[in-house]
Parts: sequence; structure tokens; C-alpha cells
Amino acid sequence: MRTVGLIVEYNPFHNGHLYHLRQSRKITEAEAVVAVMSGHFLQRGEPALLDKWTRTRMALAGGCDLVIELPCAYATQAAEWFAFGAVSLLEATGVVDAFCFGTESGELAPLLQAAELTAKESPEFKAILKRRLQDGGSYPGAYSAAVSDYLAERGHASAANFPFAMPNHTLGLHYLIALNRIGGTMKPYTIAREKAQYNQTTATDSRIASATAIRKMLLEERTLEAAGPYVPESTYRFLREEWLAGRCPVSWDNYARPLLHAIVTRSAEQLAELRELNEGLEHRIRNALPKLDGLRFEELLEALKTKRYTRTKLQRALLSVLLGHAKADFTAEKLAAGVEYIRVLGFTGKGRQLLRRMRDAAALPVLLSAARPPRPYPYLELDVRATGAYMLDLPGGGAAPALFRDFTDKPVAMP
Amino acid sequence: MRTVGLIVEYNPFHNGHLYHLRQSRKITEAEAVVAVMSGHFLQRGEPALLDKWTRTRMALAGGCDLVIELPCAYATQAAEWFAFGAVSLLEATGVVDAFCFGTESGELAPLLQAAELTAKESPEFKAILKRRLQDGGSYPGAYSAAVSDYLAERGHASAANFPFAMPNHTLGLHYLIALNRIGGTMKPYTIAREKAQYNQTTATDSRIASATAIRKMLLEERTLEAAGPYVPESTYRFLREEWLAGRCPVSWDNYARPLLHAIVTRSAEQLAELRELNEGLEHRIRNALPKLDGLRFEELLEALKTKRYTRTKLQRALLSVLLGHAKADFTAEKLAAGVEYIRVLGFTGKGRQLLRRMRDAAALPVLLSAARPPRPYPYLELDVRATGAYMLDLPGGGAAPALFRDFTDKPVAMP
Repeated sequence: MRTVGLIVEYNPFHNGHLYHLRQSRKITEAEAVVAVMSGHFLQRGEPALLDKWTRTRMALAGGCDLVIELPCAYATQAAEWFAFGAVSLLEATGVVDAFCFGTESGELAPLLQAAELTAKESPEFKAILKRRLQDGGSYPGAYSAAVSDYLAERGHASAANFPFAMPNHTLGLHYLIALNRIGGTMKPYTIAREKAQYNQTTATDSRIASATAIRKMLLEERTLEAAGPYVPESTYRFLREEWLAGRCPVSWDNYARPLLHAIVTRSAEQLAELRELNEGLEHRIRNALPKLDGLRFEELLEALKTKRYTRTKLQRALLSVLLGHAKADFTAEKLAAGVEYIRVLGFTGKGRQLLRRMRDAAALPVLLSAARPPRPYPYLELDVRATGAYMLDLPGGGAAPALFRDFTDKPVAMP
Repeated sequence: MRTVGLIVEYNPFHNGHLYHLRQSRKITEAEAVVAVMSGHFLQRGEPALLDKWTRTRMALAGGCDLVIELPCAYATQAAEWFAFGAVSLLEATGVVDAFCFGTESGELAPLLQAAELTAKESPEFKAILKRRLQDGGSYPGAYSAAVSDYLAERGHASAANFPFAMPNHTLGLHYLIALNRIGGTMKPYTIAREKAQYNQTTATDSRIASATAIRKMLLEERTLEAAGPYVPESTYRFLREEWLAGRCPVSWDNYARPLLHAIVTRSAEQLAELRELNEGLEHRIRNALPKLDGLRFEELLEALKTKRYTRTKLQRALLSVLLGHAKADFTAEKLAAGVEYIRVLGFTGKGRQLLRRMRDAAALPVLLSAARPPRPYPYLELDVRATGAYMLDLPGGGAAPALFRDFTDKPVAMP
């Protein structure tokens, strides 16, 4: 059973995702789809719109056969570690033959070429990267620029002109670098993203809108119906269910109070022990607080933003505070050791067959819940903690038993 | 101007406090009263019913002339450090001639005798204390029993029979031990508590009820009027103001959610870095959470209580989690160094005269707010953090500027 792997957030699963999924199956000639999906907190340092079990239902109804969780230790990181965690998990299943990601251009060759040259991070490349970082600006921007510089210096003029800085090119490059580093055997593919660009905030097509645009309808316009045309019927049904139960949409605003609590009850030294809090950001955050007029997340973010501290960088830092992510648990050494287990969030009938094959094929233990793992896994514990925090301040107020759904919930099973 | 010092929580200021204040002035022949008052969190590990500025107004209206703050680093501790912080602050003002505390018996002699013998904590006394602690039970209980044993062994049979274990005898003993240790010059006095015993939960007199009984009326019966007969008219007026503004009564239930957040987002190791979390209590707390049905503080407390972990011990531990009190900031060495400043919360005209005398007489810098201290004071920062946490989850939802009232509020000034 030829199988394709996808790396997803599904926040929420929409028609663009459906298109990507179907195209991925088609070009890889796959019969089954495995998705590695982020849990309750996402790459841009934000809470997911809906809990991970609901998003798993959307994924399975949309055509995935097996959904496994990307631990928040990787899911909430910049491209490098995000990509490393996701690609190595797909590879570790032992059943994924190909993986396919969306890009702005749909061109794989320049990304492959760049990945091959930069994967080893030679001293020359590192020197260029350092120079670019000194120019200021964000890390991903500097990285992309360094890749272009490096390719140009080595005579790959046409590849050097490739727009590596586009968000999905950056991610794609890091997927390929990760694949290279772990010596993975999955065959990479890319598909041009259709119609809606990543991050685009308004719908431009009658059926396709970016997840950002859809979230905007739900969060800012507070209308569920507006999202209808842009999501599969199944997504709409699950969205509606959660909406009516008052548990959706979830946004940073639900966590403004616990975030402020987590800040005001820490000394600068305690804050500086948390990941993403570097170079005095802990002081900047503490100093911003007394100037706030209200308790809204957006106001805090505005007060902190500079050219150097982008929205994403700040959101990740604030998420680290919200979740109490100690730097000591996120060292490059620990992250490079990779995920130590495969956590299953849901499966279809075909997914069940994959799981059966994984008994022999998988390189890591397969877990059906966070309860009673064969031994303690630090990243699993971080996910349990993330779920606790996520559930505690859901719209409408979390219920106590929900805090530990990681222990009690079985994977979502669909026909 | 002969001045008497009092050690108070005023939670809230009631007729019993008024009686104690007047008696204290009378027996010490004092013209002025200085109160060292706990801030937003109290000795039993609880938030105060009303913020510290409102309680300062009650104190000044009730007859205090100068109110200074006992930092939460001492205010939320067991008798030993609580007493040490309070007594050394009163002594440091340089203007307090006598201090007077309420006890169950009103007898000073046995307490003085015991304090003199135990203040040095001789190896013999320590051995007895260790033996008593091994019998199980709480630390204060073991300490009182050890004092009796020690006195009996040294032939002070009648003093040995004194009920040291009664809560105000325990506190009183530690006030005297602290005075002895710092070589203080204030003359100690005690007054028998009238009518309402400490902790008594129901009103037994038409005008006197314990603070516990009054809090019960406000918190459980949710009636302000019931408290009327037991508090001075001024207290009632301030209580009513806060009640109508929706900022009172404050209880642990207001902090259940941030407390749970602070627990679920910490690893066992991170919890164990907080003070009062010893001997595996961090595991007990983490294990209790998945079994909760709701998000009420009382339910968590019930789930944790054992003979060994008393309500007070647990409340102090949970408060340490809520406020992020690192063990490293509460070492015996740091606490023994004492408070480094005198923080003024309010004064009357007479208090202003005392402050003028304190310019020369005080052993420590006098601060009128937490803004711009002459140098950073760790305990002052802990108080700023405690105010932030207290204000953030006030009934009705705290407002952002209120989080930093320690920086913005001037002392309460009354005629």
C-alpha cells in the first residue's frame, strides 16, 4: 500500500487542504495518507482554533488515513526544528514512501539543490549566515538570504535567484534539509499552492481561502456561515458542533489572563529560563506590562513589536511563557535527538492496516494515548501540559476532566 | 511621643481589633500606634478579603497612625519567619517603644521564659524538637510540644504546662524569640483576646466576632449586612464600597484557574523548585489534578489533605505555586538577613510626625511606594508580583493598570 505523508496544522481543514491532499495522492500514486499534525499550539506561536481531536476528525473525514501528533516541542518552533520533528516522525513510521508539501512555486529542483549544499552547514555557509544575521531582520529571512548567497558563490546563479524567503519555500527547504540529515528514504514532492497564498487574509476565490482568511471570519467577524463555502461539508459540521458547544473559536485572547499571570509572577531571571526569551526580551515584556490599558493579548503584542521582534517571534516567546517551556528542555542536543515515540491521534480502516504494518516497520514505539507510556517521554509530558493549559481557558471555561484528555481519550476511529 | 507597635492582618478590621488597639494604647500608655500589616496574601496561605490599600484605610480609621507593610516573603510564612519579619520591621522604625499582641491567656511570663530558653536553639532543644517532629503532626505542634518538654527538663514545671500550642501563644512565643534574636529594645506586652477565639467560625457576642466568622458571613453567606454589628462603622463603609464595586470578597476561588494553570504548565522538577513543595508534595499535587471533577479550590484542597498536610501547610504550598515563589529566594540565610526597607502604606497626621522622626531614627530606608527604590529589593519585587497576581483575578476581573498599583499608588493619607 503506497503511502504519502503530509505535514499539517489543519487550522481548520479547508478546501485548499483537500485539494493538496488529493493532488498529493495523485502525483505520488499513493493509496493511503499519513498526516503528522500539530497539537494544540501551532508554528506561529498561537493556540489552534479547535482542539486536536476535532481537527483529527476533520483530517480523517477529509481523506487522511492516519493522523499522528507533532509534539509541541517541535510544532511551535521556527522552520528548522519544526521541519526536523515532522520529517523524522513521518520517516519513523516506516510506512511512508513519499511526502508532499505545498510551495508557492511548485518547483522542487532549486530546493533540493539548496538543501544538498546547506544541509551540512559547512563553516563557509555558517559564516555567510552569521553575516546576514548581523544585517538585522528575522532569522528565517537571514537564512534564506544566506542560502541565496551561498548558491551564488558556488556558481548556481539561477538557483540563487529562487525566492527562498517565501514562507513555504523556507519550510520546504528545511523539510529537505531534515530529510538529508536523517538519511531518510521518503521521496519528496511539491505541489504549487493554488489560489490562496499562505497568510492571505481575504478570500479570493469562491471555494478556496487560506486558513488565515477563514480564521479571520470566525474570530473577527464571528460568523460561522461565512466560512461555509471554503471548507468541506465535514469540516463545517465539526466546526458547527464545537461552535454551538461554545468551545470554538479559540484564540490568544482566551489565554491573555493566564499569560499575564505567568509574566507577573516571574522574576526577570525566572522568565529568562524560558525558551525564546533571549537578549533581554524578558525585560522588554516585564516593562511593557505596566503600560497596558487593558488585558487583551493584541495590546500586549503591539506594545512589544519592533522590527527585530516580529509578531511570530513574540508569539512564540509568549507561548513559551504561557506553557512554562524551560530552555533546559529545548537544547539543540535534546531536540536533535528527535521524537522518541509516535503518538496516534486517529485512523480510518486503512489507517488501521498501516498501524498493523507499523508494528514491525516503525522505528519508534507507537502510543495510542499519553497514559502509561512504556517509559517517561519528556515531549509527551510537554504535550500533556499544553493540553491542560489549552483546555483550562477554552471559551466558556474548561471543565476539569478535559484538562487530561491526553490520558483519557482514545484515538479517533473512522470507517 | 510614646508609640506602640501592632502586628496585624486586619482581614477585615473588626471590633475585636478595635478593642485590642485601644487596650494596647492604654496599657502601654502610648500616644501613637504603628501597625505592621500583611499585604495581599496572608499567613494561612490565603488571599486577603480586600486589597491592602482598603485595609490600610480601615486601619487608619480604626486608630492606627502609621501602617507599614510586612512583605509577603514573611507574611505568608509559618510563625517563625512571620514573627521575625514583623518584629524586626517594628524595631527598625526606631520609633516604636512597645509592642503588644493578643493571646489566649494574656500571660506574658511563661512566653518570656520559654523565649529566653529557646531563642538560642541549643543542641539539646534541637534534639527534642527533632524527636517531636518524628512523632508526626505539624511543625508548630511539634515546636510547642518541644518547648514544653525543654522547660520541664530544666525544672520549669509550671511554665512547661502552659498551652504553647494555642495559635496566639505560638505566635507570641515567636515574637519574643525574634525580639531576643535581634536584640530589640521594644518592650513586649500581651492582652487576653476577648470573647471571640482565633479561628472561631461563628459569632458569639453581639459586637465581637472573629475575622474568620466575619469572612464566613461575607464569603459563604454572601451577605454584607450580617457583618455590620461586628465591625466599626468605618470598616463597614469601606467594605460596602468595595462590595458594591464588585471587588470584594476575594477568596482562593478567584485564583483556582491561575493556580491550576501554574500547576499544569510545570513539570514536577519545576514545581519542586518552589518553596513549601517538599518531600514529594509536588507529585501529590500533580497526581490530584486528573481526579478533580471541577475547578474549585476547595475540591483541590480536599483531594490533597492528609494528617501530615494540614490545610494551612497546603494553602501555603499552593500560594507558593500561584506566586511562583522560588525556593532559592527563600533560603534561611536570605530570610534571616531581614527586610531591607520600610514600606509605608498609610498614615494619619500623627503618623506623619512619626515618619519625620524616622528620617533619623529608622534603621532602614523608608519607601512611600515600590517605584524607584534606591536599589532593587528582592522582597519588594515579590510584593509587586503578588499585587499583580492578586489584582489580575479580582472578582469581576482585574483591570490592567491595577496590576501595578504598587508603583502608582501613594500611601493612604488620613487626617
